[in-house]
Amino acid sequence: MTRLDVAILGATGAVGQRFIQLLENHPWFRVAELVGHSSAGKAYGDTVKWILDDNPPLHLWDQKVLPLDAPLQSPLVFSALPKEAALQREPELAAAGHIVCTNASAYRMAEDVPLLLADINAAHVALIEVQRQRRGWTTGALIANSNCTVMPVVMALAPLKPFGIRKVHVVSEQAISGAGYPGVPSLDIIDNIIPFVSQDEEEKVEIEARKMLGDFSGSGIAELDAVTGATCTRVPVIDGHIVNISLELAARPALADILRAWEEFTAPAQVAALPSSPLRPLQYLPQADRPQPRRDRLAGKGMMTSIGRLRECPILGYKFAALAHNTIRGAAGSSIQNAELLAVAGYIPSFQPAKAAVLA
Amino acid sequence: MTRLDVAILGATGAVGQRFIQLLENHPWFRVAELVGHSSAGKAYGDTVKWILDDNPPLHLWDQKVLPLDAPLQSPLVFSALPKEAALQREPELAAAGHIVCTNASAYRMAEDVPLLLADINAAHVALIEVQRQRRGWTTGALIANSNCTVMPVVMALAPLKPFGIRKVHVVSEQAISGAGYPGVPSLDIIDNIIPFVSQDEEEKVEIEARKMLGDFSGSGIAELDAVTGATCTRVPVIDGHIVNISLELAARPALADILRAWEEFTAPAQVAALPSSPLRPLQYLPQADRPQPRRDRLAGKGMMTSIGRLRECPILGYKFAALAHNTIRGAAGSSIQNAELLAVAGYIPSFQPAKAAVLA
Amino acid sequence: MTRLDVAILGATGAVGQRFIQLLENHPWFRVAELVGHSSAGKAYGDTVKWILDDNPPLHLWDQKVLPLDAPLQSPLVFSALPKEAALQREPELAAAGHIVCTNASAYRMAEDVPLLLADINAAHVALIEVQRQRRGWTTGALIANSNCTVMPVVMALAPLKPFGIRKVHVVSEQAISGAGYPGVPSLDIIDNIIPFVSQDEEEKVEIEARKMLGDFSGSGIAELDAVTGATCTRVPVIDGHIVNISLELAARPALADILRAWEEFTAPAQVAALPSSPLRPLQYLPQADRPQPRRDRLAGKGMMTSIGRLRECPILGYKFAALAHNTIRGAAGSSIQNAELLAVAGYIPSFQPAKAAVLA
Amino acid sequence: MTRLDVAILGATGAVGQRFIQLLENHPWFRVAELVGHSSAGKAYGDTVKWILDDNPPLHLWDQKVLPLDAPLQSPLVFSALPKEAALQREPELAAAGHIVCTNASAYRMAEDVPLLLADINAAHVALIEVQRQRRGWTTGALIANSNCTVMPVVMALAPLKPFGIRKVHVVSEQAISGAGYPGVPSLDIIDNIIPFVSQDEEEKVEIEARKMLGDFSGSGIAELDAVTGATCTRVPVIDGHIVNISLELAARPALADILRAWEEFTAPAQVAALPSSPLRPLQYLPQADRPQPRRDRLAGKGMMTSIGRLRECPILGYKFAALAHNTIRGAAGSSIQNAELLAVAGYIPSFQPAKAAVLA
Repeated sequence: MTRLDVAILGATGAVGQRFIQLLENHPWFRVAELVGHSSAGKAYGDTVKWILDDNPPLHLWDQKVLPLDAPLQSPLVFSALPKEAALQREPELAAAGHIVCTNASAYRMAEDVPLLLADINAAHVALIEVQRQRRGWTTGALIANSNCTVMPVVMALAPLKPFGIRKVHVVSEQAISGAGYPGVPSLDIIDNIIPFVSQDEEEKVEIEARKMLGDFSGSGIAELDAVTGATCTRVPVIDGHIVNISLELAARPALADILRAWEEFTAPAQVAALPSSPLRPLQYLPQADRPQPRRDRLAGKGMMTSIGRLRECPILGYKFAALAHNTIRGAAGSSIQNAELLAVAGYIPSFQPAKAAVLA
Repeated sequence: MTRLDVAILGATGAVGQRFIQLLENHPWFRVAELVGHSSAGKAYGDTVKWILDDNPPLHLWDQKVLPLDAPLQSPLVFSALPKEAALQREPELAAAGHIVCTNASAYRMAEDVPLLLADINAAHVALIEVQRQRRGWTTGALIANSNCTVMPVVMALAPLKPFGIRKVHVVSEQAISGAGYPGVPSLDIIDNIIPFVSQDEEEKVEIEARKMLGDFSGSGIAELDAVTGATCTRVPVIDGHIVNISLELAARPALADILRAWEEFTAPAQVAALPSSPLRPLQYLPQADRPQPRRDRLAGKGMMTSIGRLRECPILGYKFAALAHNTIRGAAGSSIQNAELLAVAGYIPSFQPAKAAVLA
Repeated sequence: MTRLDVAILGATGAVGQRFIQLLENHPWFRVAELVGHSSAGKAYGDTVKWILDDNPPLHLWDQKVLPLDAPLQSPLVFSALPKEAALQREPELAAAGHIVCTNASAYRMAEDVPLLLADINAAHVALIEVQRQRRGWTTGALIANSNCTVMPVVMALAPLKPFGIRKVHVVSEQAISGAGYPGVPSLDIIDNIIPFVSQDEEEKVEIEARKMLGDFSGSGIAELDAVTGATCTRVPVIDGHIVNISLELAARPALADILRAWEEFTAPAQVAALPSSPLRPLQYLPQADRPQPRRDRLAGKGMMTSIGRLRECPILGYKFAALAHNTIRGAAGSSIQNAELLAVAGYIPSFQPAKAAVLA
Repeated sequence: MTRLDVAILGATGAVGQRFIQLLENHPWFRVAELVGHSSAGKAYGDTVKWILDDNPPLHLWDQKVLPLDAPLQSPLVFSALPKEAALQREPELAAAGHIVCTNASAYRMAEDVPLLLADINAAHVALIEVQRQRRGWTTGALIANSNCTVMPVVMALAPLKPFGIRKVHVVSEQAISGAGYPGVPSLDIIDNIIPFVSQDEEEKVEIEARKMLGDFSGSGIAELDAVTGATCTRVPVIDGHIVNISLELAARPALADILRAWEEFTAPAQVAALPSSPLRPLQYLPQADRPQPRRDRLAGKGMMTSIGRLRECPILGYKFAALAHNTIRGAAGSSIQNAELLAVAGYIPSFQPAKAAVLA
């Protein structure tokens, strides 16, 4: 099977690097084009300040970085652009026929853009039809993945939807990699925490959660009808966001019912078979002091969400902690999984994964 | 003025060291007796593993550590004992006529033991009369200060009592010094957080808050009638606990009313004049990213509570963050302030602070 | 091929856990017996405080931990015992016919015990003959791997032996995992470094380096005739020891000659083909700010040594930095590689790796 | 006594803030002018990103920041400018009659600029006469303090000059505050060290040490005739640089002789009496694991150097560790002490400290 060429927008940034790392040895996709802004025209290996482990892949070292407005050959485009650049460039590329899977926040809340976390809302993919009709796009499309903090929230809540989610109170403890590079100065965070992440982080968690947990109705997404409130803090952790969740559920289930709902939760078969999908989308850890970012962030190669400490909350009824890897499951990894879903769903005409891979 | 002799129980531990450090150059008290368990019989400077800055005071270096059951000469005793040892020894010493100001949790919730944070509930001191009557003690007494995590909670809430506190939801981010020494292994907390502190930490926050915010009725404390819920987590910070508080208030005040309540809050004049009292018990920081443990824990020499980020909470109405130094304001510093209050209130017959010091 | 049963002594400790983790899915060896001291009689999963990522392997969860003096069935024994326990138990097991690959320091400097780092001194294996003769052992043997700090030193120096190593000055910056668990208290190392590791750490580096770089003469090891001096410090890093080396070389080679010696260095073919051997035993990183513990410790699955910053030293002639993963390459990983070498060298009669695996 | 007006160049940067903090309540000097570049024209409190504890002094909050080229009224100027800006502006101000005490590296090695560490080389002040003659300056002068890493080196070595310093081998472990703000990204330094500080850091240590330890001959500084070699590394510590020093001494003194030399070392009486001078310029800590940055950096209010671990070095003869606070003793604090020395030495005509203060 010939692998599909993909382009990375914002290839030298923190999330761009994660895209490149995760796509090394990807069975379906092959990094063909690197797009940057200040680094355009230079060899990737010379211009990138590589912040992940090890070094950039050798075979990309000498590849020239393209300018942001360069026409692209790759049918599939992953975007790790900053919001302002994304606002302009992403719809241009979709209009030009590219499938754009974006990690940027620019269009997440647009009515006709799916905010996908494939394991829990794969049905939202169908919103692409609405998008194409409204915007006049033919082969192109724009699909977003969520903010990295809301991600473990919705993954943990999705299995509980049958109990009637009424109120969701979130306090996050977020890793520094969520701020990109250079990001958080070490003078601000060693022997310290910062009780603030950014101007709109808390609002993002609140509104994106309702959209992601909503239902696709044929013409749009009906948001989950629940009250959501978030407090976001920064802690001296490299990777892995923890969310401390308190929860009101209409059905007042027993704790054991909630545990069972998590245990029995699986992604749709088509999603579970994708190359980037973990064996199970979530795991419950019975130890009193888990999940922990350093020890649990790489569960399922960084694609599994870990939950722990389920207990009663005197205020809202239930509480627990959830953890996910913010730059893998919460960013590049989910974008790639989204693209895989689009491929098996037939949205990338130039590429058809092998039958076996798709799970009949 | 001759300074009053004091004894330190648990003098080699983390909180014991903080007592010694804070009592250096204290205007009223003088460390006269050091009591330990495994270190009994040794010179203090040789046996202590000093974990604070610098070194133990030179003049205590050669002082012999007394065994736990040694009869003490000092009228005033500060206890930094572990719970089990405190359970037995503290009432023995009070029965023997000593004023015991304890940081241990053993008797905090006993009906006749004041759980003092002098700036907010100095009136609870009168519970000593009930205690003496019930236990048959004459000059002795047992006074506790609170858990280090509940402390910033109640300091921030006390000025809001007039608005009618209904529900209090707390998520803490606690410093490692709260676990004593050796305490938290570095392998557990570097590049990590632990979403769990200890088996009963969360319950302590919930029940101690209601007692501390309660009213003294003549015969006992009427606890605050509010629902309290706490989640406690550990972060890689040396000193300074942050609490993220969400709050329901019956009176539904405007945010500005809350700010004003904090601004106008002062300790009773008698308390404000104590040597260990800060200029103001609390401050509100207007910056979006404060309070921060490393930058704000030493406000008011570690005795001031810093509050920030007051805003609306979609779930409970209001939310904000508060910070206090856990081993100063949340432990030894408050114990010392409590003892100062007892002195000016006349509970230590052998010692009377100078008039001027007491504020007529 | 049936895998060989192995036992782990000290299975619940930090290095014992690393043995278990690295032996998961090992092509030749299978963990069959777990030996502990305070944990004897309990199920492994219930008694171990797992400090690595994730959790202990599920299939070992219910396995009973054996007491230290239990007779063992496994022909091959990996020891992660503390020194005192190792002193007694390791020779007993070797006398009873077991091959004992130990990470303990107890016998490292014994004249008839090979101190193996297979990539650089595989010939020392032959010392086993001397050992068996002297001690009257038949099928048993005792083989040590080095202190975790000397390991990157000797790996970097071995290729330079032809230049005549005269003086070696080492200043280490060592990870906290080198101290085991609970090991370094977080109150000692956050926002801090400790310019001291343990009473004999510096001497170990000095004497073990000379033995490991020595030559096997038929009857024993002739130590390298060089002056070695070490300063050992502890830094807040989870895994990965850096050594800053200054060096005097008799031949006064050009820097380019040293680079070439590193580049051309390979392990003997028999060693290079072992399952645990990295593609290359060392790599030179050209960036000015490498090697770094977090980014380079996992090179070659933790078995590769990374070198950087080669430049002239005004005092001794040459200087550079080297890094290795202290609990993989510097401990359990090297022990396992040593056992693999013994297997292909025919020292484990009950086990013969497949031909292909051994490289004709 | 009226306090002398001083100006701070680079007032919003990391070292500029430290100047402001240390000059709060200074008995002789009063911050009158704040000079910045990008912040010119704004109120100091609004434009500064305060990185030290607490907040900027309230009385400076509304003060307008002056542009870099503004003529200044203050006779005394402290410079925390970056090198390029310092190259041009500092001599202009000296030519205009200002005493400029600079922390910048621009002119440290200029032949006619004193590189002052008052406790060890106060005699170098006389170089100002040479400077004024050569440059045609009358009341102005330019005095530098050293790089923050060389500072503890020369403080520890100065008392040993009588033994004949031949070779000095330094490996530093430097705090992040040495890189300014935002400085070191947290993604680079948490769970990590960087074996590199900057392009010329190591050379600075080597050459500045020889100048500072040199003797003033009447017409210039005769550098110390010794070989110096430095390796500089960055560690996750907020404040406090450790230097690991190996040393060759011609006289081959006993270790006890070195200890005595340190113990008996004092600054000249005129220097010891300055307001910023610590009780003693250095202390030797007998514990095996000291000095430590977090515990010892604030000794003598951050102006004392702490030494420990003196022992034999197999390579050069002697080795030990030394520690100093890099932004107090190694930067702003020493600059202020230098200015105090100039004041008592009569170099600031408009200001004469009270007799008592100067120590007859």
